[in-house]
Amino acid sequence: MGDMQDRFLAVDLGGTRLRVAVTDHGFQLSGRQEEATALPEGPEGVVGQIGRMMDRALMDAGVARDCIRGVAVGSPGPLDAKLGVIHGAPNLTGWTKVPLKLMLEERLALPVDVVNDANAAALAEHRLGAGRGARDFVYLTISTGIGGGVIVNGQLLEGASGTAGELGHTTIDCHGPVCKCGNIGCLEALASGTAIGERFQQGLQAGRQSSASNWLRGEAASAADVTRAAQEGDSYALEVLTDAAEALGFGVLNCIHTFNPEVIALGGGVTRAGSLLFDPMMRMVERYALAIPRGDVRIVPAELGDDVGLAGAACVAVASTDLTRKLT
Amino acid sequence: MGDMQDRFLAVDLGGTRLRVAVTDHGFQLSGRQEEATALPEGPEGVVGQIGRMMDRALMDAGVARDCIRGVAVGSPGPLDAKLGVIHGAPNLTGWTKVPLKLMLEERLALPVDVVNDANAAALAEHRLGAGRGARDFVYLTISTGIGGGVIVNGQLLEGASGTAGELGHTTIDCHGPVCKCGNIGCLEALASGTAIGERFQQGLQAGRQSSASNWLRGEAASAADVTRAAQEGDSYALEVLTDAAEALGFGVLNCIHTFNPEVIALGGGVTRAGSLLFDPMMRMVERYALAIPRGDVRIVPAELGDDVGLAGAACVAVASTDLTRKLT
Repeated sequence: MGDMQDRFLAVDLGGTRLRVAVTDHGFQLSGRQEEATALPEGPEGVVGQIGRMMDRALMDAGVARDCIRGVAVGSPGPLDAKLGVIHGAPNLTGWTKVPLKLMLEERLALPVDVVNDANAAALAEHRLGAGRGARDFVYLTISTGIGGGVIVNGQLLEGASGTAGELGHTTIDCHGPVCKCGNIGCLEALASGTAIGERFQQGLQAGRQSSASNWLRGEAASAADVTRAAQEGDSYALEVLTDAAEALGFGVLNCIHTFNPEVIALGGGVTRAGSLLFDPMMRMVERYALAIPRGDVRIVPAELGDDVGLAGAACVAVASTDLTRKLT
Repeated sequence: MGDMQDRFLAVDLGGTRLRVAVTDHGFQLSGRQEEATALPEGPEGVVGQIGRMMDRALMDAGVARDCIRGVAVGSPGPLDAKLGVIHGAPNLTGWTKVPLKLMLEERLALPVDVVNDANAAALAEHRLGAGRGARDFVYLTISTGIGGGVIVNGQLLEGASGTAGELGHTTIDCHGPVCKCGNIGCLEALASGTAIGERFQQGLQAGRQSSASNWLRGEAASAADVTRAAQEGDSYALEVLTDAAEALGFGVLNCIHTFNPEVIALGGGVTRAGSLLFDPMMRMVERYALAIPRGDVRIVPAELGDDVGLAGAACVAVASTDLTRKLT
């Protein structure tokens, strides 16, 4: 399992926030750094930013640079995890075919893994969170977009090029709206935070009434705004949130029928809506799922919160370094 | 790997046909038997029928009974493959919670595995057919219903109770028709042979014109009738078949995004429609699938034909017996 002195660098690259921390074999994070992602400076700029944040993280954690055995970056997809190339991720504006793995390996002189952020989060929830002990596990994050990660037989489902688990881009309404990815009726196009905000906004513009207008004052509504209005009893907000939750119910049901997992965990900002989201979602699952796989599965909130991205990258960095050591 | 004398019994239990054969470690089938399934005689009757067909298969194959190490039955789902219990399979009328594994073990005095027929077929296509050499592979059978089986990392995706891979019962049109399973807008409800026949029939009853009326003479249309009419240039039949093929395209696309497989193979009677099915299906995939996983996958016809069920059961019987031997 390697030396007790071994340390790894975990990087959570988001469209808005960039987080970096040092981890040990026990996934204890230290020297945690967080900044706004320097997206306007392009991939080169962000690579430099990661390098600087790494130096500060090492200093804050009191860890010598030569204790670092490897680096893992969780990044929005779609990306080729085998090659470490990011292909036009919608949340990393302007990034097209960026060879992030190569660029970072050159800058940091360390082995680097680049993985889909939802896959990394699935690993972390499986190892440390809501999926502990499950052999088959599905993680869904409902946030700006919808991401998925799947554990089959205790292993991350990766597929031929590491893009497996794109559950947010599976079609559940083939006559539905066009998704940002170009496909039709994706789960993400119906139940993501972005979809909830946009649909609500369109309704307001078409003359639907909502108490949210009192505080929006013409600003675009977010899923958080819709949730707040629904919690205050606003019927239009409740309708929009319920429709999204029901669509999510079909997404969850598809995961049940496809993977027959022991646990499905739901994370991401939209799940802060709590029972306003979970209750209509579960009604769909109870009404429509096949009895046997429904009986096997627990559907639960994710446990790791905002640090799930760093924890996921930590899991990848430790596992990848141990694997390389075994093979060489 | 066991003795060269070892033989196994493969059983393909269908709603209409029952097939039994002897197999060796190399999956060579011998003593092949086929009869109409004695469904009206209930589970007890069918168990007796399998026993009699086994005796004849052994005789025809010239194999002594005590060479048989194990039995595997491929059966329509939903079923609990861990317990070998069939739960109300729509294609085995009147079978509710039938403990087929126990019943057969008592009757045959041999270890018995009961597996979902599409999962067994996926194993066979992976081992011997269109999926040879693929680490990640998806098999879809488009027939009376739609079944699926998935190979992940070279292993059958089973899930907590062996019901994983129910891809025919994933929702792709959440505002669509009710499926026989009770769910909404399942792939099976839109693109199975049954769905194609029923939708065509409904159109005829609603006054749509078709050359098929010339030979149907009031009989209910099957998918084969629709295919024949479409091949003869009938525009209504072509419309129904194209709609089903496009729905199937979304099902295939969902498999690509979920599993990022190297190969997807399509089998079952409806695929006899050939390019009338494959062309509109592939148009949807080309138009809407994510570039990376689309670039990785070959989408091909299945190779094993009518014997895929027996071959699948053979794969299960051999693997299961070898595994038991390793564990004990």
